[in-house]
Amino acid sequence: MRYLRTINYYETDRMNFVHHSNYIRYFEEARVWIMETNGLGYAAVEAMGLMIPVLSVNVKYIRHITFNDKIEIDTRITKFTGVKMTVEYNVYKDGELTTQGESTHCFLEKSTLSPVNLKRAYPDVYTFFQKLYELTSNEE
Amino acid sequence: MRYLRTINYYETDRMNFVHHSNYIRYFEEARVWIMETNGLGYAAVEAMGLMIPVLSVNVKYIRHITFNDKIEIDTRITKFTGVKMTVEYNVYKDGELTTQGESTHCFLEKSTLSPVNLKRAYPDVYTFFQKLYELTSNEE
Amino acid sequence: MRYLRTINYYETDRMNFVHHSNYIRYFEEARVWIMETNGLGYAAVEAMGLMIPVLSVNVKYIRHITFNDKIEIDTRITKFTGVKMTVEYNVYKDGELTTQGESTHCFLEKSTLSPVNLKRAYPDVYTFFQKLYELTSNEE
Amino acid sequence: MRYLRTINYYETDRMNFVHHSNYIRYFEEARVWIMETNGLGYAAVEAMGLMIPVLSVNVKYIRHITFNDKIEIDTRITKFTGVKMTVEYNVYKDGELTTQGESTHCFLEKSTLSPVNLKRAYPDVYTFFQKLYELTSNEE
Repeated sequence: MRYLRTINYYETDRMNFVHHSNYIRYFEEARVWIMETNGLGYAAVEAMGLMIPVLSVNVKYIRHITFNDKIEIDTRITKFTGVKMTVEYNVYKDGELTTQGESTHCFLEKSTLSPVNLKRAYPDVYTFFQKLYELTSNEE
Repeated sequence: MRYLRTINYYETDRMNFVHHSNYIRYFEEARVWIMETNGLGYAAVEAMGLMIPVLSVNVKYIRHITFNDKIEIDTRITKFTGVKMTVEYNVYKDGELTTQGESTHCFLEKSTLSPVNLKRAYPDVYTFFQKLYELTSNEE
Repeated sequence: MRYLRTINYYETDRMNFVHHSNYIRYFEEARVWIMETNGLGYAAVEAMGLMIPVLSVNVKYIRHITFNDKIEIDTRITKFTGVKMTVEYNVYKDGELTTQGESTHCFLEKSTLSPVNLKRAYPDVYTFFQKLYELTSNEE
Repeated sequence: MRYLRTINYYETDRMNFVHHSNYIRYFEEARVWIMETNGLGYAAVEAMGLMIPVLSVNVKYIRHITFNDKIEIDTRITKFTGVKMTVEYNVYKDGELTTQGESTHCFLEKSTLSPVNLKRAYPDVYTFFQKLYELTSNEE
């Protein structure tokens, strides 16, 4: 699924490129959007007492983008075990790949900050991500 | 009192200026610093159950600054009643005034988000800010 | 005219509010959007050799907003002389006013950074802003 | 070499952690600082007509940090060929490792955006980075 986004002026730097740190923020937006769009918003997840922190992130910068560019972020869950999750991002501008990224996540009990196995503790959330994984991991 | 700061690359925009939104962040840094330096850190204030939110802010941009510039932010409490507070910021580069700003604040009980009269509810915090007001408001 | 925006996770702070500096960025987004929507994008303005820097900004925080909130920014040009311009922003959430702001601007020749009188130097840009001023200043 | 940094309030999010995107910015600060400290500032490099864009970045989040935390970023050039460079970052708080990161870079001619071999085109810059590589790559 593709998240659409226009680049803001304040996201450029004096090289006239989007500052490279901002992609991490676009990835978060895409992650939040793909959840919301498929029926479980991240705010709702937090309201249940769950957190989905980022364990690692990596980004590969291929082509730069700048102010006012329209990007599409192809967003896929490529791994999901109920304990950990990997999300992949491919950023396109005018059909050309500009940036690739990946983030890994775990699930934490908000009150204790201890790891959670979704299948046991939050079966509905487990089902949601399992379906989202199936839906997106093999998308054309 | 003067807070010293070097401008980061990621704070510039494609005009090659510091993006104008960042000054609001520098003002917050200066506010936090002036409290810490004078003996009461903002984290400690929060730990007491107090918040000092911003009610208003204004900025006047006179000269632009850019990456690697060294700035000094002259920071003064210009008004303090125990219920409200006004902080003034004058940003200098190489002795020249580049930016002026002002923020107004109130004091809130963190648990209820209701306004607090420091003099009654937090007399030590009241004394701290009263002294900081006296110290900075008339500085040369 | 109203610019619609959803608040991102990374725009909140540990108070659980949108950090107050971000409104300045939302105002810029609204300004860019209102120009684009009415036929003259800011990138196009820059391509002509013009800049529209911010001379001053002020913000009044009334109600806080947080992650996932949907806001509408009523954006109006309230003053326009061809040399200077004032833009007003009223931010609403669920019909309630949360934030008010104002920014003032001038027009600069990009190559020389000297002020420009649009009427003489860029008559088409003058006409554009004059119409946008008439359109938005008295909106219901 | 270790770059020291205090976490700002506006860098936290509503999880009460530093937002994970900010580490990319701290790494840039550390990179700029290590160059400046060793005698060649990044602004000077740009003034020569050179750019050092980021080709990739990765971050591993181990322990979270928050407002007012004091961090030290151990910063090392772990690879340098004159055409490409890898920088490694280990972030410590109170002596404990909180975050690890790595960025890779190339060198570009600013005017043409084409890759540069420093050894041939900018021998002084080559020598600078070669020495910095030798100095930091094997630090205790």
